[in-house]
Amino acid sequence: MITRDSILDAHERIKPFIHKTPVLTCRAIDEMCGNQLFFKCENFQKVGAFKARGAMNAALSLSKEELDKGVATHSSGNHAQALARAARTLGVPSYIVMPRTAPAIKKTGVLGYGGQVFECEPTLAAREETLAQVVERTGATEIHPFDNEKVIEGQATASKELFSEINDLHFIITPVGGGGLLSGTSLSAKFFSPATRVLAAEPEGADDAFRSMQSGKIEPSQANTVADGLLTNLSLRTFGIIREHVQEVITVSDAEIIAAMRLIWERMKIIVEPSGAVPLAAILKRGELKGKKIGLILSGGNIDLQKIAKLFSS
Amino acid sequence: MITRDSILDAHERIKPFIHKTPVLTCRAIDEMCGNQLFFKCENFQKVGAFKARGAMNAALSLSKEELDKGVATHSSGNHAQALARAARTLGVPSYIVMPRTAPAIKKTGVLGYGGQVFECEPTLAAREETLAQVVERTGATEIHPFDNEKVIEGQATASKELFSEINDLHFIITPVGGGGLLSGTSLSAKFFSPATRVLAAEPEGADDAFRSMQSGKIEPSQANTVADGLLTNLSLRTFGIIREHVQEVITVSDAEIIAAMRLIWERMKIIVEPSGAVPLAAILKRGELKGKKIGLILSGGNIDLQKIAKLFSS
Repeated sequence: MITRDSILDAHERIKPFIHKTPVLTCRAIDEMCGNQLFFKCENFQKVGAFKARGAMNAALSLSKEELDKGVATHSSGNHAQALARAARTLGVPSYIVMPRTAPAIKKTGVLGYGGQVFECEPTLAAREETLAQVVERTGATEIHPFDNEKVIEGQATASKELFSEINDLHFIITPVGGGGLLSGTSLSAKFFSPATRVLAAEPEGADDAFRSMQSGKIEPSQANTVADGLLTNLSLRTFGIIREHVQEVITVSDAEIIAAMRLIWERMKIIVEPSGAVPLAAILKRGELKGKKIGLILSGGNIDLQKIAKLFSS
Repeated sequence: MITRDSILDAHERIKPFIHKTPVLTCRAIDEMCGNQLFFKCENFQKVGAFKARGAMNAALSLSKEELDKGVATHSSGNHAQALARAARTLGVPSYIVMPRTAPAIKKTGVLGYGGQVFECEPTLAAREETLAQVVERTGATEIHPFDNEKVIEGQATASKELFSEINDLHFIITPVGGGGLLSGTSLSAKFFSPATRVLAAEPEGADDAFRSMQSGKIEPSQANTVADGLLTNLSLRTFGIIREHVQEVITVSDAEIIAAMRLIWERMKIIVEPSGAVPLAAILKRGELKGKKIGLILSGGNIDLQKIAKLFSS
């Protein structure tokens, strides 16, 4: 059960190990969209993404006995690096299952944080089976990227910091993939800034959360978008929280995501990954939000520069 | 005559109109080069470059009568935007002479700050002649990008801020083009941090400052480098200051500049233009600086994303 106190506890627990990231504003973008935007820069977070918070809280919440056996997950994204870094920080092993098709840069990242990589076929079944074997053999604890209360509590601390710095936000908006950040943010709003309404932003090419909100049940993801951090489905846990606390999921096209990312790079002079630019794309699309004070979580800044350069060079 | 007091005065004068930019550190890059690096982020400065400081100080140092007639310069770089912005901020006209071959994005930038653009042939003679005509016709005051004491005093305030935040720097390093930033920085070190030695970093493809230091006279620039903010020659004024106060000019190749820029983008998650990455390229090249506390001026963040994307996509 995630409560006000459990988020406060999570924050105290992880504080020594994470950055209190800055909140930036940009007059040029404010003028462009007619809002007052406050960007919570989790692209500057440890490992370059908010995932450092959840992974750290989950690892720190294990018993000494559990922790000594290490942690494990299957992920080819920021959570993999976040968990490897959390484990290294605490001096315990980490076991990361990755599809053999994952970019070399992702494997290098995990290895750089001292994680052990296990490759498998690029199917969910193969990933889960390989992870089960690794857990069986090592006794490590699986830390799911989002379907985990301790992870959600950790992700909630990003918006908690934002609310403590900026009062009276009309809205807060985050990207949604598996829903860990969005769940944490919506609970954080409920407990620490109840007048702030919670929005989510999602790529049209992976609009499973949007469709799930419409149909009332978890819809599968199609997953065809430049925002490769947002390909996963919701879980029952995250969908339950999101359904109750999130006002709306706004979908945006890849062209809108790339334009928003470009604005952030060129105007704010900071690097954000495509997934992290999705909330700004949603704000720029939705004229009726004009005149509002809006918090945006810039979720991460880990880019494959060669891949992204191709988007800009055409 | 630039003195301790004149730099202090410049700083008080421009403070309401510029950002006190942050000083960032990056553990990953520190580990890579074996130094403690402190990055003064002038890429986050107004107009995206330190040039906002000098242009503002020069404009604010004019008499009311002079100021009302406006300011003028020939520049296709960050100084053009900086001067247009300073003029708009003070409610006076600005006249910017640009070669007709300058990128459209540069003209748009100046126009966006309310500057009037005058196009001319892409030769120094044509630029100077066109500027003389504009000054003759309008009565505006020419503000040279670097051969101007008030401009140099303004640029000196960037390192003054850095010295007041970080003590005991062994070195400070800036890029060198015309030498305005380098002159200001070296005087600032002399007055506010006399134990700090001053280095300069320059592209091999525009190594006129390096050659000038060797020969003892101003050598012409060849100007063939990706660092397009550093193409200009020194002036007698800047060379005089640099010769006296700068320990060494370190040259780096375009490949080294691009690698350093990539490191800053990927590890620090901030956008710096090629010229701004030249000092880090120099530090990475020079192993004998290991173990030192070094301040680097990240001079600007204005990029032509399409052009730069091509550097990364190959």
